[in-house]
Amino acid sequence: MRTQSCSSPNTDTESIPSAPMLSATVKDYRAIANQVSAQLAAHGVEQDTKAGSPVEEVNALKQSGLILLPVPQEFGGAGATWPQIYNVVQILSKAQGSVGQLYANHATLVSMGRLVGGPGQAERYYRLTSQQNLFWANALNSRDQRLKLMSVNGAFRLNGVKSFCTGMVAADISIVLSMEEKSNHPVLCVVPMDREGITYNDDWDTMGQRRTASGSYTFHDVLVKPDEVLGPPLSSGASTTLKSLIALLGQTFVYLGIAEGALEAAKGYTTTSALAWMASDAETATQNPFILQRYGQMWAELQAAIALAHQASEALQAGWEKGTALTTEERGEIAIVMASARAIAIQAGIKITTHIFDGMGPRATAANYGFDRYWRDLRTFSLHDPIDYKFKDIGNWMLNQQYPTPSQYS
Amino acid sequence: MRTQSCSSPNTDTESIPSAPMLSATVKDYRAIANQVSAQLAAHGVEQDTKAGSPVEEVNALKQSGLILLPVPQEFGGAGATWPQIYNVVQILSKAQGSVGQLYANHATLVSMGRLVGGPGQAERYYRLTSQQNLFWANALNSRDQRLKLMSVNGAFRLNGVKSFCTGMVAADISIVLSMEEKSNHPVLCVVPMDREGITYNDDWDTMGQRRTASGSYTFHDVLVKPDEVLGPPLSSGASTTLKSLIALLGQTFVYLGIAEGALEAAKGYTTTSALAWMASDAETATQNPFILQRYGQMWAELQAAIALAHQASEALQAGWEKGTALTTEERGEIAIVMASARAIAIQAGIKITTHIFDGMGPRATAANYGFDRYWRDLRTFSLHDPIDYKFKDIGNWMLNQQYPTPSQYS
Amino acid sequence: MRTQSCSSPNTDTESIPSAPMLSATVKDYRAIANQVSAQLAAHGVEQDTKAGSPVEEVNALKQSGLILLPVPQEFGGAGATWPQIYNVVQILSKAQGSVGQLYANHATLVSMGRLVGGPGQAERYYRLTSQQNLFWANALNSRDQRLKLMSVNGAFRLNGVKSFCTGMVAADISIVLSMEEKSNHPVLCVVPMDREGITYNDDWDTMGQRRTASGSYTFHDVLVKPDEVLGPPLSSGASTTLKSLIALLGQTFVYLGIAEGALEAAKGYTTTSALAWMASDAETATQNPFILQRYGQMWAELQAAIALAHQASEALQAGWEKGTALTTEERGEIAIVMASARAIAIQAGIKITTHIFDGMGPRATAANYGFDRYWRDLRTFSLHDPIDYKFKDIGNWMLNQQYPTPSQYS
Amino acid sequence: MRTQSCSSPNTDTESIPSAPMLSATVKDYRAIANQVSAQLAAHGVEQDTKAGSPVEEVNALKQSGLILLPVPQEFGGAGATWPQIYNVVQILSKAQGSVGQLYANHATLVSMGRLVGGPGQAERYYRLTSQQNLFWANALNSRDQRLKLMSVNGAFRLNGVKSFCTGMVAADISIVLSMEEKSNHPVLCVVPMDREGITYNDDWDTMGQRRTASGSYTFHDVLVKPDEVLGPPLSSGASTTLKSLIALLGQTFVYLGIAEGALEAAKGYTTTSALAWMASDAETATQNPFILQRYGQMWAELQAAIALAHQASEALQAGWEKGTALTTEERGEIAIVMASARAIAIQAGIKITTHIFDGMGPRATAANYGFDRYWRDLRTFSLHDPIDYKFKDIGNWMLNQQYPTPSQYS
Repeated sequence: MRTQSCSSPNTDTESIPSAPMLSATVKDYRAIANQVSAQLAAHGVEQDTKAGSPVEEVNALKQSGLILLPVPQEFGGAGATWPQIYNVVQILSKAQGSVGQLYANHATLVSMGRLVGGPGQAERYYRLTSQQNLFWANALNSRDQRLKLMSVNGAFRLNGVKSFCTGMVAADISIVLSMEEKSNHPVLCVVPMDREGITYNDDWDTMGQRRTASGSYTFHDVLVKPDEVLGPPLSSGASTTLKSLIALLGQTFVYLGIAEGALEAAKGYTTTSALAWMASDAETATQNPFILQRYGQMWAELQAAIALAHQASEALQAGWEKGTALTTEERGEIAIVMASARAIAIQAGIKITTHIFDGMGPRATAANYGFDRYWRDLRTFSLHDPIDYKFKDIGNWMLNQQYPTPSQYS
Repeated sequence: MRTQSCSSPNTDTESIPSAPMLSATVKDYRAIANQVSAQLAAHGVEQDTKAGSPVEEVNALKQSGLILLPVPQEFGGAGATWPQIYNVVQILSKAQGSVGQLYANHATLVSMGRLVGGPGQAERYYRLTSQQNLFWANALNSRDQRLKLMSVNGAFRLNGVKSFCTGMVAADISIVLSMEEKSNHPVLCVVPMDREGITYNDDWDTMGQRRTASGSYTFHDVLVKPDEVLGPPLSSGASTTLKSLIALLGQTFVYLGIAEGALEAAKGYTTTSALAWMASDAETATQNPFILQRYGQMWAELQAAIALAHQASEALQAGWEKGTALTTEERGEIAIVMASARAIAIQAGIKITTHIFDGMGPRATAANYGFDRYWRDLRTFSLHDPIDYKFKDIGNWMLNQQYPTPSQYS
Repeated sequence: MRTQSCSSPNTDTESIPSAPMLSATVKDYRAIANQVSAQLAAHGVEQDTKAGSPVEEVNALKQSGLILLPVPQEFGGAGATWPQIYNVVQILSKAQGSVGQLYANHATLVSMGRLVGGPGQAERYYRLTSQQNLFWANALNSRDQRLKLMSVNGAFRLNGVKSFCTGMVAADISIVLSMEEKSNHPVLCVVPMDREGITYNDDWDTMGQRRTASGSYTFHDVLVKPDEVLGPPLSSGASTTLKSLIALLGQTFVYLGIAEGALEAAKGYTTTSALAWMASDAETATQNPFILQRYGQMWAELQAAIALAHQASEALQAGWEKGTALTTEERGEIAIVMASARAIAIQAGIKITTHIFDGMGPRATAANYGFDRYWRDLRTFSLHDPIDYKFKDIGNWMLNQQYPTPSQYS
Repeated sequence: MRTQSCSSPNTDTESIPSAPMLSATVKDYRAIANQVSAQLAAHGVEQDTKAGSPVEEVNALKQSGLILLPVPQEFGGAGATWPQIYNVVQILSKAQGSVGQLYANHATLVSMGRLVGGPGQAERYYRLTSQQNLFWANALNSRDQRLKLMSVNGAFRLNGVKSFCTGMVAADISIVLSMEEKSNHPVLCVVPMDREGITYNDDWDTMGQRRTASGSYTFHDVLVKPDEVLGPPLSSGASTTLKSLIALLGQTFVYLGIAEGALEAAKGYTTTSALAWMASDAETATQNPFILQRYGQMWAELQAAIALAHQASEALQAGWEKGTALTTEERGEIAIVMASARAIAIQAGIKITTHIFDGMGPRATAANYGFDRYWRDLRTFSLHDPIDYKFKDIGNWMLNQQYPTPSQYS
């Protein structure tokens, strides 16, 4: 168990300047993301092995300025669109799926003020984020209802345990879901991570996405100020909320990034280290017709998945720009294309992370290469929202004209 | 055997006006295409059964104005982009794969003046097409070299046989490939179909794309005027020619249209006629979870294929707009994304046209529905350019940085 | 509409001797089946095209003696085991799926006396079959309840219509399912096809299995003698009946035969007629690595499906030999392996009948080859019992220890 | 680096009695194997994590008596057939793929006297094995030719390094491949592991099959007695040798065991720990139709793979029993069915070890379950002999009537 390091949001920003990005053009973000990704890739195997807390990675994101990408320009950010943000998610995920997940979460969470906040909250948290270069995490798992919120002297106190607090150990500020003690209704609030009484239980140990530090937290009499409680929502109602779609599509780009990273890593190995197969007429692995065919098929399937996800991200952006004018039908259309993109990305990713080995051969299974981490990361992170139900939702829309009911998973 | 009906290009236009399209906006083209497609769909099963010559279909295309879509505005056409043209190919193919193939061919062939023509030929044939509302076909099969061109008194004469003359029986004008008798070099020329000496052998009978009339022709002393010989090309050289890419991508949209047509037809059946499966808890087929899942998966895979093909069509359009400035590398990039789109479209199409039946059940195999024609059309038309070699080409580019060598198939 | 040809069971046997088989050893049956199959294959494309009534095929089966294979030796038959019978089903289905289906039906129906007959009925119908060399068909579709049975003067009369009367038009004798007028209970009876009042409506027209003549029949006051009503069953009860399993496994071998026939036909084409692909280094199609790979994969997948079906047939035979001693659990185990074999055979068959074309190339789509009939036959005949529910049944047994409830489909 | 523990083959047997198996019937072997497998399964996750040397596992195999299964009865063993031996391989592999591989290797190696030995060698090593309960391993990697054999004073000495010495660190006796110094020809000899000068380099670290200790060995002046050099072979010539087929089929059963172990483990999790999916109508995971479908499909595909492998093992046994009478054609037929079984087992295994997670859900990715080890083991061990070349070999036999050339991989 480990007590949260009490780095205050107020002081962090001096040491970790966000300057590079704020002056950057959109084209530059991609270059910055590629640079960060290259650095992360160099430590990918090592970080996967040791798991632990992604503090270095979050610092790298802060220093790069990428964490201000989703903040609107009027509040001091770069004002990137969702397609641009997701592009960064994909680029980061190529290096480390864990970092991609953390960044995708951050991008969703930093926008929660707009998605579910009350008057002034969106602006306030956007500004705070850009002023202090804050990294956001969450304790949102709705299936775990052990965390309670009680009213105490005009403020609130959090008590209890919450599982799946992805990245909170490296975050400055988090969105926390708790059950209000009296009403037993769910309440969202914003909690700076330097509040007293927050303890990480350091209990995250999985076969993949090992460096997301998604373990549980214990809250002991943690203060929540009245204006830190989010809502009631200003924007669109429950039936048109984009909250879950933004999050789920972000995950989709994590899958795509992992698959792309796997394919690039494999290509690097095959072109430099793979032996020619003795039963092949080809003198090198890179002339082997079956190896060429496999790479070609993996690439083509990945491109199709990326093209569809890109289309989904543009649909989402159009919906986002409509704000409260978004209709239930329009939200439904976005949900359907998101579901399609997500399912296709998982299908393609599973195939690619499995079959890269057929293009590399047996010696590529040496542990030091860590080529299995792509499959482990993707497999781990693709189960929260079963692909079978994505297809069922789409089919239900096709045959019965019913849009998915908005929920955490649709 | 049947002698080509000698409808002269000069007179046809009066009876088949192209007005509707020429005044139409791009948005209207889609509406027109959908209208034509709906009419064609009503006769899809019947036309597939009887095969024969697609004269009615070509007339429908002429009357709709769609055949002038690819002609630049300055020469009297609608000046549509390739993405727009391919969109029409897809819409028509939903109804009848044969018509989609004929239209995709026409769109490529009407542009041959620009692609391989000499001074003035592009303009001349564009203008002739728009003035007379001409439908183009071809006798281009390069593997059949039995058709010879000889010089006679300052002009030329064609003699011999050519196989796979898709749609020529319903065309006004064609591009013909023959071997120049002395040099034994291949020569392309434009031949109006009312020239004397052209006979269709009516020998097309296949399991799919039955209504393309792709049989052989016999040429007996057919006159070719000197200015009807195409070339030497003004535009880009052989290493940057877009000729085959335009044709191959057109075929890709035929696949997508066939698959989309199959899925829509199946949906229509399932929602109106399919029985609930007795072992299912669901009271109707449209509530059966496995049927919903199958439809959802088919839809999602089709969307991914369409999204990638659309990306390829935009890459092609960008290359097209570069004209002679197109580099070998840029042409190579287009070839790779085209190959990917094509292979993915075939993969998705094969799955969809096979598995629609799992969503419909046994009674959907009644011959009057003709639901098998989608698989037969797609399977027939997807073999000219083996998918395995598409993947190999992509792999070769990935691992060895080699672009596909421009050819009829890459 | 066509009145049933009144060939009496009593006289047929003279002209169509069953001698060849009755003296044959089990090894010989296979030779005989191969011989019949070779003859049928020669007319496969033609019969598929014209559909119609399989009278010639049934005569060929009679002349070969194969129809007495399932009759026990003590009653004048060859006493073959189910694995042997199914082997013949597979061999015949290689040539024509329709004939395989007819023969598999016959083998099940000729055993119905034993499966659901009352005292003496099994022996009586086995003997009648061997004495008169009878071919059996059925009017058993349980979803169509329009055919009624009424008691008239100590006997019964059938009135009404029944759909899906596979092969009855070419049969000597049939099992008919009707609803007893007063009780509205289903009743099975045996009806010689020369009874007065039976009319074929000649309304079978499907995309595959076109030569099974599975159209509807009208029964007008058709006499059923009291001892022609089957039952009450002597053998095992409803919970241990093998009736549906025998029929469903027979269908499985039809699938396997169709797939094997497709693969052999394709191999014949590729080795004699396929062109080398121009982008291939290989000088012939049979040296093309991708073509070799595809054939190898199709073959291997087919062998796995056959091996599993063979295992199921041996399990069935063991259950059959247990007779009334068969327990519910033992019946359940057979049902599970049958379901597995059936689903795997369909999966493999769909793949093979689709991908043979990738090993043959575009010219193999010429209609005269009829290579599409394999896919059409398999796709048509594989929908009666959805593969998804086979898998669900197996999963339910795995996770919940529940055997499939005996029914027409499990 | 670690010096081989000098346990002499002469003394080991007292502490590790082989009694249980020697008196056992064939049916008992299976029970014994299941018992050993259950014990191994309890430590599967732990052993996978720590990797290291499989000394405990080999001791368990010795104590169980299973290692004498392949020794003929006349030489003191149990005289099991290959199907029986492979059945044990499969059962052990369910628990730990590494142990399955070690045992399959042992079964092949203990038979090397018969396969490639000279006069008396088969009997001698069979007897020695049964008398002393010896476990065999190997240093056979033919691609690494750094190990040299030189003639010294009427005996031989081994010097050099050899990689991929699977299990030698836990073995009593090994077969070693070296290059004879003068002729540069490969020579096989038998080397007891307590010979002086043998050192394990402890350099095995892979993503799967982690507990096989397949690292490299250094040989320093290691004595080889003249009668320890194997050959010249008494039995069949190179063109009919079963050596590689026995080994490759053994690996096939390792794949099947891993897949079966994965499926059973997953089933255990789903029935006890999986949560119902919230978007499902089912109240428990075990009622979820998609989960049932997935389990059913995994089971059915595994059964097909097992059925085919069983058929291959029976073909192998028949060939084995023919001894020197085996023809090239007969050997070729076995090679083809082995190749099919191997490829199908890999295909099924990859799917199953990937998709068990879809039946278990996200919480099954916790590291303590170790459910990813099945995929890691299978993926690692399935690359030595590319599946694409298995299919190509089969296709080459189909289309060109050519059997695979006998080699280490065919």
